[in-house]
Amino acid sequence: MVGDIEDVTWTDSTCPVARTIDLVGDRWSLLIIRDAMDGARSFTDFQQRTGVARNILTERLRRLVDRGLLRREAAASGRRQHYVLTEAGRDFFTVIVALRQWGERHMFEDGEPRSVLVDADGHVLAEMRPVDSDGRAVNADSTAVVRPVGAS
Amino acid sequence: MVGDIEDVTWTDSTCPVARTIDLVGDRWSLLIIRDAMDGARSFTDFQQRTGVARNILTERLRRLVDRGLLRREAAASGRRQHYVLTEAGRDFFTVIVALRQWGERHMFEDGEPRSVLVDADGHVLAEMRPVDSDGRAVNADSTAVVRPVGAS
Repeated sequence: MVGDIEDVTWTDSTCPVARTIDLVGDRWSLLIIRDAMDGARSFTDFQQRTGVARNILTERLRRLVDRGLLRREAAASGRRQHYVLTEAGRDFFTVIVALRQWGERHMFEDGEPRSVLVDADGHVLAEMRPVDSDGRAVNADSTAVVRPVGAS
Repeated sequence: MVGDIEDVTWTDSTCPVARTIDLVGDRWSLLIIRDAMDGARSFTDFQQRTGVARNILTERLRRLVDRGLLRREAAASGRRQHYVLTEAGRDFFTVIVALRQWGERHMFEDGEPRSVLVDADGHVLAEMRPVDSDGRAVNADSTAVVRPVGAS
């Protein structure tokens, strides 16, 4: 379980999708996690990359620390603090890649300039798709949500 | 390219992750897409599942239609409208599954009741992970974002 979530009101407490959205499903939290994946560390890094107002950034960084996705670390200079992804924060990479690949498919005209995510050899990643336990592609129609017994 | 995005201010216009977040990266939009994947169709369906205020729901449904993730359709009764996922909306399933699997790994104590997503045979899906073009697992450290020439 990630960190302190006492201030979160669950929309649908037995649904893992809804819990994740309730925790980090807002524009600035998601953008901050994106930037941390891409090497942002200092308050200034995050501020410059997102253009977010300083008071909102302060609040969101604190919240991401409280909620267990970031932790504070003394910068090399010793005076300032850096923000680095926790293990749970790093594990959010799968979501960031899913957001990226959907954006690549739907948010750009042909030939419009866009960044690409490449592996150590400079190759673009494979397209990530949900598959069943036998490796066959599935979609919303071929799957079903089963709620726990007793839950509404 | 999805629908009308003239009202969106891009945080980082060449980044597919940021564009997707700018488009639908807010709690209610993500929850509405989740519910549409799980069979919600009518205004009342969405209202009851999320508990969102009616004026916010009205605005978010309109925006998701404008932005090309939902489309309106006459309900069988003929009097009311339903909201169904477009092809781009259906393709967002990969993101929803990524949010779910992260939540399953990090947002529940052992044994805590939660819903599961199963295939047609009732089996839980495989864990989805980003892989390189050779099928090897990658993470934020083993990949890099390459920005288009000329972009800051």
